[in-house]
Amino acid sequence: MHERFMKQAILAAEKGRGKTFTNPLVGAVIVKDDQVLAVGAHLAYGEAHAEKAAIDYLCDTPEKLLNSTIYVTLEPCDHHGKQPPCTEAIIAAGIKQVVVGQLDPNPIVSGRGVKKLRDHGIHVLVGVLEEEVRNLNRHYNYFFEKKRPFVALKQAISLDGKLALLNQRTRLTNDYVMKKVREERTSYQAILVGSQTILTDDPTLNSAINEFPFYRVILDRRGRVVERDNLAIFQDETAPVLIFTERSEIRGALPKHVEVIYLPEVLIPNVLTKLGERLIQSVYVEGGAKIHDAFLASGCWEELITYIVPKILGGDSVASISSSRPAEKVTELNNVTVKKLDNTIKIVGSRV
Amino acid sequence: MHERFMKQAILAAEKGRGKTFTNPLVGAVIVKDDQVLAVGAHLAYGEAHAEKAAIDYLCDTPEKLLNSTIYVTLEPCDHHGKQPPCTEAIIAAGIKQVVVGQLDPNPIVSGRGVKKLRDHGIHVLVGVLEEEVRNLNRHYNYFFEKKRPFVALKQAISLDGKLALLNQRTRLTNDYVMKKVREERTSYQAILVGSQTILTDDPTLNSAINEFPFYRVILDRRGRVVERDNLAIFQDETAPVLIFTERSEIRGALPKHVEVIYLPEVLIPNVLTKLGERLIQSVYVEGGAKIHDAFLASGCWEELITYIVPKILGGDSVASISSSRPAEKVTELNNVTVKKLDNTIKIVGSRV
Repeated sequence: MHERFMKQAILAAEKGRGKTFTNPLVGAVIVKDDQVLAVGAHLAYGEAHAEKAAIDYLCDTPEKLLNSTIYVTLEPCDHHGKQPPCTEAIIAAGIKQVVVGQLDPNPIVSGRGVKKLRDHGIHVLVGVLEEEVRNLNRHYNYFFEKKRPFVALKQAISLDGKLALLNQRTRLTNDYVMKKVREERTSYQAILVGSQTILTDDPTLNSAINEFPFYRVILDRRGRVVERDNLAIFQDETAPVLIFTERSEIRGALPKHVEVIYLPEVLIPNVLTKLGERLIQSVYVEGGAKIHDAFLASGCWEELITYIVPKILGGDSVASISSSRPAEKVTELNNVTVKKLDNTIKIVGSRV
Repeated sequence: MHERFMKQAILAAEKGRGKTFTNPLVGAVIVKDDQVLAVGAHLAYGEAHAEKAAIDYLCDTPEKLLNSTIYVTLEPCDHHGKQPPCTEAIIAAGIKQVVVGQLDPNPIVSGRGVKKLRDHGIHVLVGVLEEEVRNLNRHYNYFFEKKRPFVALKQAISLDGKLALLNQRTRLTNDYVMKKVREERTSYQAILVGSQTILTDDPTLNSAINEFPFYRVILDRRGRVVERDNLAIFQDETAPVLIFTERSEIRGALPKHVEVIYLPEVLIPNVLTKLGERLIQSVYVEGGAKIHDAFLASGCWEELITYIVPKILGGDSVASISSSRPAEKVTELNNVTVKKLDNTIKIVGSRV
């Protein structure tokens, strides 16, 4: 019974996918006498929370809310942000039971919402379909629980594990797979590449939709990217660009959407700390080989997404995830999934 | 109708798989009044041909053969080898019709068998289920049609396209996949590796069954392998070893199953010519990286078999199909098949 309505709340939550950053996806369903009275979702950052949206749906017949049950995927908030606290709306509506999928891992909420409701005599149940509910906000949960952004390493390689012919822009994936990658980018709040990728490929690093402010992040230790002003990332202003560099003096003015962050040493943990301070919950690392290897060596990554294209490059072409670092161990991936996308095989696996 | 009986002949032919080298797989079915009277197959090198086996099955009632039809996957032979010509047995038996899957590409047979039968007034039909029939003897057909052995490049790589940690024997595949590889080796008549693989891994290069004399071939340009006498390939005498080298003087005596072949330059086409002279119809090239790249660059290969293991090595580990050769083009594979084997993904594709 509880599971059925929670499933409906999960489906509702999905409607906000890609639009709620930095908020999580949340869905809510109001039920009385086994009848669904209202469904709500948090559809976009700054807009009504799911609980409030469901309650507001019944604004002409508020008496229906009395003694009803609300199913909500995430613990209701109890603080004033862009929106008033959901706990207050639930209490004011006369709802008698709240069924929660998971507690909110965000420390400004966690546990407080449930406590406030219970303090007002409302019956609260926590943990219904918790695993499914947690999957709605995998990166959000990770970010608040591990105190750093979720990192996925993404690569498109040939059957001999190569990224490109040496010093040549080499397109391995076809249009269909490229479209899938652009869609995948929208699940992350930042795309990260090394300066060599920018200099060789000159990409815009756009996603399929630009409905939330995803960041484009460049690791540019020696400050090679900032010296050039005709690059696509400088001309395309649709999303902010963050450039991490060890070069303290930058000549000339950069476009407004570009910010240069100086670090004495551009190390992966330091970069992730800086991104975390900006509430960036997830990072999609698109390489190249040395950047991926730096993430591998740092241990600061969670998932490897590999697109394998049935081609061979051979010879001195650029090998994926490689550097001059002496490799000492074999890292095994878990939860491996394999999917065919047109001529390409997509393999996803997670660390540990 | 013809297809049904030819299918039965194909099934019969499969019984000799791995045991008929240098002969092809052949199956035969004798039919009269829509009834199958006998089924035969060439079960092993030196044993009866399929047509003879089927005819012999009816040796107590030879009158049944009069005016019957024989379905045979491959054109009957018309020469005296280890066995008398099948054409003569067919003529002597009074068979009135011969349905052939494909002409024999072997020049000592091709077309002659059919001509001899027709000259004796027997009705001959050629090309029934030709594609399926040709698949029975893919390597045999290739060898006689292209005048060189069929070459498959086989590699087991990590998700970052690596073969091993630098200078360390690194086992990527698990027992199950290793077993599958050993089974796959039996479909080829030679296994070929570079000297570095021998020196680093010291393998026996055995197959799962040793029922036909498959060759173990080593490219050892500088003669590093022949200097060592404690290697597994020298101790394991179950199959002949051929070592190609540019080193003209070899010290000491090697075991009887080992033969050293001197070439002024160990180039892939030259090696394949020498193997072809020994009637080796197919070669399974197990690397390492430089050997695979030499085959890629030579154009003398037909298929790439890749086992991808969900692991990452990174850093300076050994990249698959690579060398200092400047890579200039991307080679696309065709007829790509993807198969999951336990934790491993097997991808097979062919050149052109």
